[in-house]
Amino acid sequence: MAVEASAPGKAILFGEHSVVYKGPAIVLAIDRRARVVVEEREDDCLYFDALDLGFSGFFVGDQYVPERGESWRGERLKALQVAAKTTMEHIGVKSGLNFIVRSEIPIAAGLGSSAAICVATVAAVGELLGGGLPLETVCELAYEGERVVHGTPSGVDNNISTYGGILRYERAKGHERLNLENTPPFVIGNTRRKRSTRRLVSRVGRLRERNPEIVNQLIDTMANISEEGLTALKEGELRCLGDLMNINHGILASLGVSISKLDLLVHASRMAGAFGAKLTGAGGGGCMIAVSEEKNFENIAKSIRRCRGVPHIINVTYDGVMTRRVE
Amino acid sequence: MAVEASAPGKAILFGEHSVVYKGPAIVLAIDRRARVVVEEREDDCLYFDALDLGFSGFFVGDQYVPERGESWRGERLKALQVAAKTTMEHIGVKSGLNFIVRSEIPIAAGLGSSAAICVATVAAVGELLGGGLPLETVCELAYEGERVVHGTPSGVDNNISTYGGILRYERAKGHERLNLENTPPFVIGNTRRKRSTRRLVSRVGRLRERNPEIVNQLIDTMANISEEGLTALKEGELRCLGDLMNINHGILASLGVSISKLDLLVHASRMAGAFGAKLTGAGGGGCMIAVSEEKNFENIAKSIRRCRGVPHIINVTYDGVMTRRVE
Repeated sequence: MAVEASAPGKAILFGEHSVVYKGPAIVLAIDRRARVVVEEREDDCLYFDALDLGFSGFFVGDQYVPERGESWRGERLKALQVAAKTTMEHIGVKSGLNFIVRSEIPIAAGLGSSAAICVATVAAVGELLGGGLPLETVCELAYEGERVVHGTPSGVDNNISTYGGILRYERAKGHERLNLENTPPFVIGNTRRKRSTRRLVSRVGRLRERNPEIVNQLIDTMANISEEGLTALKEGELRCLGDLMNINHGILASLGVSISKLDLLVHASRMAGAFGAKLTGAGGGGCMIAVSEEKNFENIAKSIRRCRGVPHIINVTYDGVMTRRVE
Repeated sequence: MAVEASAPGKAILFGEHSVVYKGPAIVLAIDRRARVVVEEREDDCLYFDALDLGFSGFFVGDQYVPERGESWRGERLKALQVAAKTTMEHIGVKSGLNFIVRSEIPIAAGLGSSAAICVATVAAVGELLGGGLPLETVCELAYEGERVVHGTPSGVDNNISTYGGILRYERAKGHERLNLENTPPFVIGNTRRKRSTRRLVSRVGRLRERNPEIVNQLIDTMANISEEGLTALKEGELRCLGDLMNINHGILASLGVSISKLDLLVHASRMAGAFGAKLTGAGGGGCMIAVSEEKNFENIAKSIRRCRGVPHIINVTYDGVMTRRVE
């Protein structure tokens, strides 16, 4: 018997970087999922087939033994090993396990691929060995795995992957899940440049140390944009949403987290008819997100492709983590 | 006998757009000049040879008669005709005049070409027919010509072209001329896309009407950047100046006045070693300006060229309008 669990990726609509200091981030679960299939094996090892990500290998205890792909890639699997181990400790069962990891979410692109895989891993192990875990527990245990990769992540990614939907996250107030009747689809453009969230967050931190007053003002403004953006999203005011996304992109650029390719895709999307476009996630590469009338989607996607980006048309999904037993 | 007058162009270092609402603009006179040679002619006409700008023609009264170039280009000459006429009225002399207009300042690029030509025209006519005018008068009469082209200009351009040097301009407080011992050279990159200041200013105005709180916050931040940028310039803190220019560019982009080509040149300059770079002037085309150690200038200029921009290495000039009699 095996269990398959899947969990969605995410796109940040507003509040990347500012959320570290002040105000909310508005985060969307997107209809691109990571899937993990798990089954017991006879020895004590954890075996991961993550060929979508380009590697596979064993954990013998905490030691990574690569099968395919370079050994440093084991670092990526470390989060999954920790998530699986912590889940087994939580349940009080110990077993060797085979994992098959597949993902539709581009990796290192700011779309929450690693959290989605972690969440799916915890849910799959919890279902297989413990007969299912409450969502709250899945979310917490996945956070433990995420900590291995991201230091002290905000907790946004594991939350959105667990619960799906739309999340308003604020450091001081925690998570609030929003239920909106209609959310528009968005166009995402992937620059295919990988980047490290941690490095970009510390880059903004250093700029803020050098220019405290000005950077704090910009953070205040971004906090306002998040609030107004949420209102525009709730009211379906796409033109207004676009205005706010455009403004937000400029501010993120002023903090030094945009790159030429992101600016290029953002401009191209606007020229192709988007109401607005901005980078999404930490910047430095990764993706941009555009809002538009649907009739312009094909045009925008074409423009993104012409600039050598990869377009995705995405919808908000209210399906958080899901598990099912497979024979 | 003829008179030649020349006046410098300008580059805005900080405060474009924000100066319309709040805080100072910091403006540099640059060592690129417009030159006007004027002599009397026997009839009542004003003849302009402005072949550097691509046209020549007569004013018979207020009526433009093109000689070379399309007749709509006469609009450009209208400012010079008004400046010359107003100057003659001021002096109380009336004469036909031949003008030769030459300029090293790229036109419609935000570098103050039209004000420099206006100032030089007034000074030349004043010297030829009135034996010289006080700078204050030159500045005021040139403003009359400028009004024809720019509606109600801020008065920055005619001021900087008349007096040279560095100007701190604030709507509420007027002009303050600064004397700094050392100012660094800058690299300017021209996108070769012409734009209209008036249209861009009204674009920002509309964005502000739609998003008053957020845009006002950004304007506040830009006002702060101008003040801090002036301090950095005074203290020769080029790295700090660069930081502030980078931040300012992002905010201008957030107001919707950058274009892809400007962003491209800005990124290219930074990658080539600039401490910072931003668009200069109203945006929508025109130029960007970068600060750097001089050893990187050649590299930055190359990068700008590679992106099909035109680089200029410019110095601040304290030589305002100058006139001399020529045989």
